[in-house]
Amino acid sequence: MDRNGVTEGEFEERGMNKCAEQVSHLALDIGGSLIKMVYFCGENSGSEHQQGILSSKESCGLSNGNTNCSVLGGKLHFRKFETSKINECLEFMSSKQFHRNGEDCHGASVSEKNIIKATGGGAFKFADLFKEKLGMTLDKVDEMNSLVAGANFLLKAASHEAYTYMDGQKEYVQIDQNDLYPYLLVNIGSGVSMIKVDGDGKFERVSGTSVGGGTFWGLGKLLTKCKSFDELLELSYSGNNRVIDMLVGDIYGGMDYSKIGLSSTAIASSFGKAVSEDKDLEEYKPEDVARSLLRMISNNIGQIAYLNALRFGLKRIFFGGFFIRGHAYTMDTISVAVNFWSNGEAKAMFLRHEGFLGALGAFMSYRKDGFADLMAHHLVEQVPTKPSRNAGGGLNNSKILKDGNENISIECTMQLSN
Amino acid sequence: MDRNGVTEGEFEERGMNKCAEQVSHLALDIGGSLIKMVYFCGENSGSEHQQGILSSKESCGLSNGNTNCSVLGGKLHFRKFETSKINECLEFMSSKQFHRNGEDCHGASVSEKNIIKATGGGAFKFADLFKEKLGMTLDKVDEMNSLVAGANFLLKAASHEAYTYMDGQKEYVQIDQNDLYPYLLVNIGSGVSMIKVDGDGKFERVSGTSVGGGTFWGLGKLLTKCKSFDELLELSYSGNNRVIDMLVGDIYGGMDYSKIGLSSTAIASSFGKAVSEDKDLEEYKPEDVARSLLRMISNNIGQIAYLNALRFGLKRIFFGGFFIRGHAYTMDTISVAVNFWSNGEAKAMFLRHEGFLGALGAFMSYRKDGFADLMAHHLVEQVPTKPSRNAGGGLNNSKILKDGNENISIECTMQLSN
Repeated sequence: MDRNGVTEGEFEERGMNKCAEQVSHLALDIGGSLIKMVYFCGENSGSEHQQGILSSKESCGLSNGNTNCSVLGGKLHFRKFETSKINECLEFMSSKQFHRNGEDCHGASVSEKNIIKATGGGAFKFADLFKEKLGMTLDKVDEMNSLVAGANFLLKAASHEAYTYMDGQKEYVQIDQNDLYPYLLVNIGSGVSMIKVDGDGKFERVSGTSVGGGTFWGLGKLLTKCKSFDELLELSYSGNNRVIDMLVGDIYGGMDYSKIGLSSTAIASSFGKAVSEDKDLEEYKPEDVARSLLRMISNNIGQIAYLNALRFGLKRIFFGGFFIRGHAYTMDTISVAVNFWSNGEAKAMFLRHEGFLGALGAFMSYRKDGFADLMAHHLVEQVPTKPSRNAGGGLNNSKILKDGNENISIECTMQLSN
Repeated sequence: MDRNGVTEGEFEERGMNKCAEQVSHLALDIGGSLIKMVYFCGENSGSEHQQGILSSKESCGLSNGNTNCSVLGGKLHFRKFETSKINECLEFMSSKQFHRNGEDCHGASVSEKNIIKATGGGAFKFADLFKEKLGMTLDKVDEMNSLVAGANFLLKAASHEAYTYMDGQKEYVQIDQNDLYPYLLVNIGSGVSMIKVDGDGKFERVSGTSVGGGTFWGLGKLLTKCKSFDELLELSYSGNNRVIDMLVGDIYGGMDYSKIGLSSTAIASSFGKAVSEDKDLEEYKPEDVARSLLRMISNNIGQIAYLNALRFGLKRIFFGGFFIRGHAYTMDTISVAVNFWSNGEAKAMFLRHEGFLGALGAFMSYRKDGFADLMAHHLVEQVPTKPSRNAGGGLNNSKILKDGNENISIECTMQLSN
C-alpha cells in the first residue's frame, strides 16, 4: 500500500485495463534485473479501436509518398517488470491476449504476431519459456543495436527528451538533428554500457562498468533490507552520506586539501568512516547507507563516462537506463561528477524515456522487416502538463516513481506497409 | 593468537625491540585509516650502535666527494598503525625514546629531533596531539609530493622494487632510470590518488576515486563483521565472487556476449545477483561477499587508472598504497582490468614497498634541510631469500601479511652532513 492507498497490484491492474485488446506490436528488453516492455496501442479504447487507423491517403502523403500503406494513430506504452518475476510479464501479455489475437492486429499476420522482438540477455535465456507459456518466438535483436536505435529515435523525434539536471534545475535541451553525432550513450542497467554513437547503426561499445544499478540495488538490499529498488531510492532521499563516507576534512582535520582542488567536503573514501568507527551495520541508519551507496555509484559512473567522452572527444554524454529513474539526487551526483572531472567543460544529459532505450530499439526493428514503421518525424510527444516531480525537492518520491511509469506514453502514429 | 601461536601484541613487541634506542630519523604518513612510519636504525644493536657509522673518508668518497660528512650504515624500517588507534603509534615512539634522546642521535640536534616530518591529512589533524603527548612538532610535507618522492626513490634505488603480477606469476621489472618518466602513480589508500609523474618533483594529480581501500574495509566490515583489513583480505581469499556477482552468462542464459567481447564469466553487475535472490545478508558466506567486494574495487581502480594512463599516453602504471598488501588476488584483478581495458597494451606494475611511498617521501624530505641524505645509489636492498609467499597460491595469508611488515626493511646508508 503506498501513501495514496493504492497497492502496487491495483496500480498495475488499472494500467493494464487502459488499452485492452488493442496491442498490435510489442517489444521486450529482458535485462538482468528488469524486463522493459514497449507496446503500441491504437487510439480510442474498447470496440472502437478501428478509429485509430487513418486512411492511407491522409497519412502516407505526410510521410514518404508511399500510398501502399495505412497509418494508425495511437500511443506507445512503456512498462517494466522484475526479471525475477517474469511470470508477471507473461501473465500481462496473456491477459492482453497478445499471443492469440493475431487476426485483429493491424497489418500483422498471425505468424508475424507470434514473433516478438526482444533484446537483452533474457531474450536468449528465456526464449524457451516464452515459447512454452505463450507459444511465442522471441526474435533476438542485438542489445547494443537496440540501445542505440532507441536513443537515436528519441533524440531525433521527441522534442522534450534530453535535459540537463544540476542544482535542482531541470533544463530541456534542444537537439539539432544535424549536429547530434557523435555522442556517448551511457546506459545504466544492472551493469553499465558506454557506447560511442556515430550515426544510425554506427556505434561502438567503448567501455562499461560492472558497478551499476544492480550493484546499487543488490548491495543496497544486503545493507538495508529494502525490498525494492524504488524503496531503496526513496530511502536514499532522506539520508546523509557524510555519516559513513570519509571526507577530505575528516582526514585533514576539517581543512581543504586546496592544493589539489579537494574541498573539505569532498568524499575521500566512500564508506571510509566505517573503518574507524566501532559500529555494526545495524547502528547506521539505512537511509545514510543508501545515500552513500547511491553517491558512490553515481559518481563513479559519471567519472568513467567522462573519461571515455574525453578519450574520443565527445561533446555530449547522454545517460539512460533504469538506474536513473528521474531521481533528482542520482542525476545531480552524475552531473556534479561530470562537471568536476571535466572542469566544467562537459555536461551530463538525461533522457526522459531513460529506461526504455533498448526496448524501444527492439520495437523499431520491426520496420526492418518491412512490417511497420514508427512515424518518428510526426511523433507528438505527450509532454507532462505539470513540471516533473521526479526532479523536485522533498516531494513524495514513491508516487513519483510509479507515476513515472504511466506518464511516459508517447502519442504517435504507426505506418503500416500493406 | 595467530596460527603460529604468536599474538599480534607479541609480534609487535618483538619487532620493537630489534632496534631499541637507535632510531635517528623517523617520518610519518598519517592517512584516513592507517599511519605509516619509516625510521632509520643504525647497524648493530645495543651499546655498539656507534659501529654503524663509517668513517667520513671511507664513505663519502663513494658518493660525491664531499668529505665534510659521515655515513651511517643501517636499515630503514617500515611500520604501520591504525589511525583510529593513534595512541599505539605515540606509545611506540615514546618507547623508543625517540622524543628524548636527541643527544644520542647522529647529526641531529635536540631541536631537530623534536621536529618530525609528517605527511597525509593526519599531519594537520593530529599536530596538536603529537605536541601535547610527545612534545614534538610535525613538520608537514605535502602528501602528493611525498608519494612521488617515495616512488621515485624506490624506482631508482631499489633493484627489486617494481614487478608485474598476472596468473600467479610475479616478475620483477628492471627500470631503466633514463626511461622512467613519465608514468602514472596510483596510490590506493583509503581513497585513491592518480598522479602523472614527469620527473623529480614534477607531477600532477590528474585523477582519483573515492572507491578505495577505505571502501573495501569500511563496506567489508559492515557486510562481514570482520575486525581488521587483513582478516577481510584473508577471508576474500577463499571466497567465490560468482555467488553474488551477476555474470554475463547469468543474463544471457550461459552464453557469451561475444559480439562486444564479453565472455559469459565476465562480471556484468557487481553484487547484481543479490537483486533477484530472496536472501538476506546472513545467508551469504562472508568470504563470497568479501571476494565480490575486492574484485569490484580492484577492477574499478584498474579501469580508471588505465583510462587516465591512456589520456596522457603513459606507458607505465605503478600501483602503490596499503590496499594492495602484496595480495595475489588484488593484484591479479588489477592486472586483468588493465590488460582487458587496454587490449593487452598496458601492464600494471606493483611496488614492493607499496604502502610506504608517502612516509618514505616525507623521510626523504629531511635532506632538503641539509640534514641527512639517504645514499640512494649505494642502497643495498634486502631481497627476500625465499620467493614471496604473498603472491603465492593457497598459503597462510595471515602470516604473510604480518611477515610482510617485517620483511620490508631496506639496508642502506645515511649520509650525514656535519
